[in-house]
Amino acid sequence: MRDVRMRGFADRADVSEVESFLRAEAGALPAEAVDLLACTGRVLAEDVRSEVNVPGFPRSAMDGYAIRGEESFGASESAPIAFELIGTSLPGAAFGGTLGASQAVRIMTGAPLPEGADAVVMAEVCQENPDGTAVEVAEAVPPRKNVGAVGEDIRSGQEVLSPGRRLRPQDAALLSSIGRPGVACISRPQVRLVVTGDELLPAGSSPAGVHIVDSNSVMLRSLVARDGGEVLPFEILPDDPERIRDAMADAAANVVLVSGGSSVGQEDHAPRLLGELGSLDFHGISMRPSSPTGLGRIGSTFVFLLPGNPVSCLAAYEFFAGPTIRQLGGRSRDWPHRRAVLPLARKIASAIGRTDYVRVAIEGRHAIPLATSGASILSSTVRAAGAVIVPRGHEGMAEGQEVEILLYDEEIAEGSEA
Amino acid sequence: MRDVRMRGFADRADVSEVESFLRAEAGALPAEAVDLLACTGRVLAEDVRSEVNVPGFPRSAMDGYAIRGEESFGASESAPIAFELIGTSLPGAAFGGTLGASQAVRIMTGAPLPEGADAVVMAEVCQENPDGTAVEVAEAVPPRKNVGAVGEDIRSGQEVLSPGRRLRPQDAALLSSIGRPGVACISRPQVRLVVTGDELLPAGSSPAGVHIVDSNSVMLRSLVARDGGEVLPFEILPDDPERIRDAMADAAANVVLVSGGSSVGQEDHAPRLLGELGSLDFHGISMRPSSPTGLGRIGSTFVFLLPGNPVSCLAAYEFFAGPTIRQLGGRSRDWPHRRAVLPLARKIASAIGRTDYVRVAIEGRHAIPLATSGASILSSTVRAAGAVIVPRGHEGMAEGQEVEILLYDEEIAEGSEA
Repeated sequence: MRDVRMRGFADRADVSEVESFLRAEAGALPAEAVDLLACTGRVLAEDVRSEVNVPGFPRSAMDGYAIRGEESFGASESAPIAFELIGTSLPGAAFGGTLGASQAVRIMTGAPLPEGADAVVMAEVCQENPDGTAVEVAEAVPPRKNVGAVGEDIRSGQEVLSPGRRLRPQDAALLSSIGRPGVACISRPQVRLVVTGDELLPAGSSPAGVHIVDSNSVMLRSLVARDGGEVLPFEILPDDPERIRDAMADAAANVVLVSGGSSVGQEDHAPRLLGELGSLDFHGISMRPSSPTGLGRIGSTFVFLLPGNPVSCLAAYEFFAGPTIRQLGGRSRDWPHRRAVLPLARKIASAIGRTDYVRVAIEGRHAIPLATSGASILSSTVRAAGAVIVPRGHEGMAEGQEVEILLYDEEIAEGSEA
Repeated sequence: MRDVRMRGFADRADVSEVESFLRAEAGALPAEAVDLLACTGRVLAEDVRSEVNVPGFPRSAMDGYAIRGEESFGASESAPIAFELIGTSLPGAAFGGTLGASQAVRIMTGAPLPEGADAVVMAEVCQENPDGTAVEVAEAVPPRKNVGAVGEDIRSGQEVLSPGRRLRPQDAALLSSIGRPGVACISRPQVRLVVTGDELLPAGSSPAGVHIVDSNSVMLRSLVARDGGEVLPFEILPDDPERIRDAMADAAANVVLVSGGSSVGQEDHAPRLLGELGSLDFHGISMRPSSPTGLGRIGSTFVFLLPGNPVSCLAAYEFFAGPTIRQLGGRSRDWPHRRAVLPLARKIASAIGRTDYVRVAIEGRHAIPLATSGASILSSTVRAAGAVIVPRGHEGMAEGQEVEILLYDEEIAEGSEA
């Protein structure tokens, strides 16, 4: 620690500078085959064209009777027209014959229209005779009425989904309907968590004496999952440079998140190791919390040195690692949170040149900056409804000013009032 | 089909009537134990109090030197005060002794404060001598400065999380920090999909002849997952009343979603079976699409008869089944979609007394109702950016009127322009 002043963060980078760097460096990962039943929420990596018509046959849009429409012209409730009833068409079980003059076929919704028919008259305006050999039709229907044409939903050759789209439940259904068993999607970023600290006990332990329980890996796991990444097998590492080096150089990872050991103190090996193994592109960022954040690359892997303090870890993840994981996975870099715009109940003090991540509660339709702003106070992020970002060009935000809140909860209606 | 007029939907229920019924009947499911690493996104079912202080010991908030604060009074850059350096305190490795007068201990962020010390002076204003036996302190620090007090984050006995909360990443971290290996959450609703139809091929098949590929189960799976439910093992059933009866009566299910066979036609067994096995509480709802929707209960299981047409299936799920699954799982019944408010580019026609689910595209900051409104046109829900609900009391919505759009995509910034 003797030379700590020499290694201090003399020259802190601006948040936007770091964001620009990451935006420019992180491209979408290669595609991989994804099963139809697992594709919702994934980002499409191919141009999907249908090779079939949907429907592939003319189908009835109603329960009723298939006829030749022009033969019903003039039919009314007072003057129904009789048709010979020659069979039934069910979904998946077409009527085998061909419909001739003055003939009708019972038909169900979705069933194939028989050869020779061109319209369906709905059951509600029809009356079969008792032995089911004839039906009286009490309404005129023009040709094509109540018939779904071949390809009316999707035409063969049509482009149905484009690359970059995040697949919806109905997109998966559409892929199924055109016969796709799977689809090419951007690979999910593989994320290695490197949590170091001789003081740390694994999640699920009870804190004891001077040992505390690892909580950052628990939070990061959930954040990575939210952002579409996959966390590789994880264990807490001792503050041993060799072990940390091996973990940081994990070739299976697209992103490495190092929590703890990111600062400039005695046991902070990670920044030096990152510089040796690849490049420490930034170390020290003009923001609060999270100023000791570092980041760089080892080959094509992005390495983030997240501070050990839990609030700093959260903010550094949200500003830098989260957007990178989303971008690698083909998603938007934008904050994924729902937003609310509310006036401030009290002013927020900041400093020109520094970006602040301020936790706020919401009460009485006002945003209340939380007094406990310490980066070590994890519970402040539990009490808060969300965060307000104070950009670098601002000295703060005035009482009464409308601010945009990045909400921690998905369900705004409940829990947005603290 | 002879008596179809007799069994028609003479008396259609109003959407709000059905919603009120479901809201009143569906309570949250019992709690179950959930592992810490799986609890994010789940709904808490217990009052969580901490049994420990966090931190459990006074800790340093800085890299620096632990001293007795009052001994630094008067120190400045021009007149530093010297302390005897007697050891080091690291995270997880406390300094064993007690600090006496004019003594200092090297200390890392997060490390336990030694006995006898009451403040930490940051490393940047200190200078060790070459052999590490003394340190000069160039800044005065009052007692408690840069020291995290016992329980400053969480106090023993404090209520940290309340029942009904949907757990955030940071909540899971907090649970970890207080030593919880898991937590009681509302059970995830178990959902049985009952998809019938002799015309259906399983997802992943190619459509062939008069056989179409099941797409509704693919869509419903994703929607159920979105709403926090778990889909039980699934296979397409033939239109065989015995098989459908067994599936609907599945005791493992909290919710049964029957797709297809919900109408009043020849092969529509489900409504009759539901009435026999339990109660068909509603059948026929004044809405478009989805008017043939039915629902009821078998014991405590909710059974939804969703129309086979994919758009109707989607709308009926979103109006009735989705909110019920969310409510059973302890979540809000509210539409889970992000919203946008935009003017209509063209009017929407509706009818007084009927609730409409209208798909709209978004172009040039206007909502454009999609012309293809057929309930069988799945691709319309793929082309649309979202849906507008026209409530029952409206004849429609005028061109230029601002409407709320339930967006299909989570990421609003991209893809909200069709």
